[in-house]
Amino acid sequence: MTALQHLPSLRRVAVCGGTHGNEMSGVYLVKYWLRNPSELQRGTFCATPFLGNPQAVEQCVRYIGTDLNRTFIADILNSKDSDTYECQRAQEVNQAFGPKGSLDAYDFMIDLHNTTANMGCCFIVPSEQSLLSVHMCNYIQKQSKRRHCPVLFYQQPGEETYPIASVAKAGLAIEMGPQPQGVARAEILAEMRSTVAHALDFIELFNKGTLFPSFESEAYKFTGSVDFPRDPTGEISAVVHPKLQDKDFHPLQPGHPIFQTLDGEDILYESDNITYPVFINEAAYYEKKAAFLKTEKKTLSQPALQKKF
Amino acid sequence: MTALQHLPSLRRVAVCGGTHGNEMSGVYLVKYWLRNPSELQRGTFCATPFLGNPQAVEQCVRYIGTDLNRTFIADILNSKDSDTYECQRAQEVNQAFGPKGSLDAYDFMIDLHNTTANMGCCFIVPSEQSLLSVHMCNYIQKQSKRRHCPVLFYQQPGEETYPIASVAKAGLAIEMGPQPQGVARAEILAEMRSTVAHALDFIELFNKGTLFPSFESEAYKFTGSVDFPRDPTGEISAVVHPKLQDKDFHPLQPGHPIFQTLDGEDILYESDNITYPVFINEAAYYEKKAAFLKTEKKTLSQPALQKKF
Repeated sequence: MTALQHLPSLRRVAVCGGTHGNEMSGVYLVKYWLRNPSELQRGTFCATPFLGNPQAVEQCVRYIGTDLNRTFIADILNSKDSDTYECQRAQEVNQAFGPKGSLDAYDFMIDLHNTTANMGCCFIVPSEQSLLSVHMCNYIQKQSKRRHCPVLFYQQPGEETYPIASVAKAGLAIEMGPQPQGVARAEILAEMRSTVAHALDFIELFNKGTLFPSFESEAYKFTGSVDFPRDPTGEISAVVHPKLQDKDFHPLQPGHPIFQTLDGEDILYESDNITYPVFINEAAYYEKKAAFLKTEKKTLSQPALQKKF
Repeated sequence: MTALQHLPSLRRVAVCGGTHGNEMSGVYLVKYWLRNPSELQRGTFCATPFLGNPQAVEQCVRYIGTDLNRTFIADILNSKDSDTYECQRAQEVNQAFGPKGSLDAYDFMIDLHNTTANMGCCFIVPSEQSLLSVHMCNYIQKQSKRRHCPVLFYQQPGEETYPIASVAKAGLAIEMGPQPQGVARAEILAEMRSTVAHALDFIELFNKGTLFPSFESEAYKFTGSVDFPRDPTGEISAVVHPKLQDKDFHPLQPGHPIFQTLDGEDILYESDNITYPVFINEAAYYEKKAAFLKTEKKTLSQPALQKKF
């Protein structure tokens, strides 16, 4: 276990909703906070709310031309041409809250998402090196009424970070579901709201010098995706098996059914290893050719954390 | 009670999916049946499957320019100009399965829909004058494993019928939920499929001369819609109350909460009468300014029905 880590205090904090314009919890909350920001105020900072993709919010679609939450990479942020509305918008966001990777970037960004999958309240963070974010998750987990608020690491080895929160020095995405696209459900909205409040409370405690002790916890690491079975023309030919549907974060054993064809045939999970599927039957991932994402479960040890005085 | 009614046998039957391109049960089933039509075969007829809105299916959206399921009215069907893709498509469908109101029209059309609301398996029929459709619903209700498969009458007094099924001489829409837009859930797909099978079995029995006895049953009649509360700029300012969410077809008493503002205030149902809300928090109805539709419950007496020999 590494010794106590010190990090600078967090003064410039942003909360983003509507990165995907049809994920309504974040859209509603950010629109509300833009008119009533007091809820985002703490003693040591005041978080800035903003809509990630205003045009997509306006049209209640995920995106206009391309998925904004995949555009925060150097090639797009530094490009002279903006192929799509989202590439242009990524540059605007990068200018306002970055530039990504620079000392001028915001200290922290919280990005609010919904999924049609049964993910509960899940935190998406680049990797276990995201010390501040992982401590924040650990803090929120202890405050939450939910028994299980899993942490999911998305970054692949050597991969550039690409989501909107990567513009800031640190960040995390809160992913809540199940909720249909284009629908706001009261209970999910309320839980998203209290989760953001806990996140801001964590930053406040951190800024005030609280020592967050070292801890061990479990997390899930993205390892790949599984597409739907398709016929020779590329058409999807099976649906997610009822025994897999809604079983996000449950262990999936090799040989267990994952799809059911319209002919009534079960398709089994072929692998040597258990996986922990997530984003099972997420509406937005059909076009990404992912019926679910695979993760491995791992235990992580995090050093203690305190503000650098 | 009226005496036994006689109607001609039904030879030309159509089953439509994808009238809304992101309602996936019907899209998947119709695509399957177009390749494997044997399931739609009975002794006295073979139902014709078709996609209502192929371009919307292709793009996985509800519609391209306008809601197809509102376009089957004389003004649009007889117009020389087609303002939108859907107006043109309505004319094509009318040519293939109508013309609406003529002797040449198909005898029956079943139209397959999903909703994000907790509607279960619901049948939508113009009115209690839709004798054949109401008998079909009564038959399916008796075959179904579900305790409650409500019948909903949508037609207002003096109103022209407008949905796609109105092109045929008789028809009904099967509305199943909850299911997010753009997602196919295995259990809903299976129930939609068995419901269509029961509908076709009913037609087969009818064609073979079965006498369907008179019956009394309850049904729900559309009476109006309730919009979300909005701020002076027109923005939605409250969400469906957790006590109303998912309570489709449950009695809603005056004075009970229907919305919750983001300020935490409950908004109550103001009326002199109980209503039976349906399509509560349906994603596609936000733009139609309907947080839910109101219905009244009524008992209907239907005369016996038999084929005209």
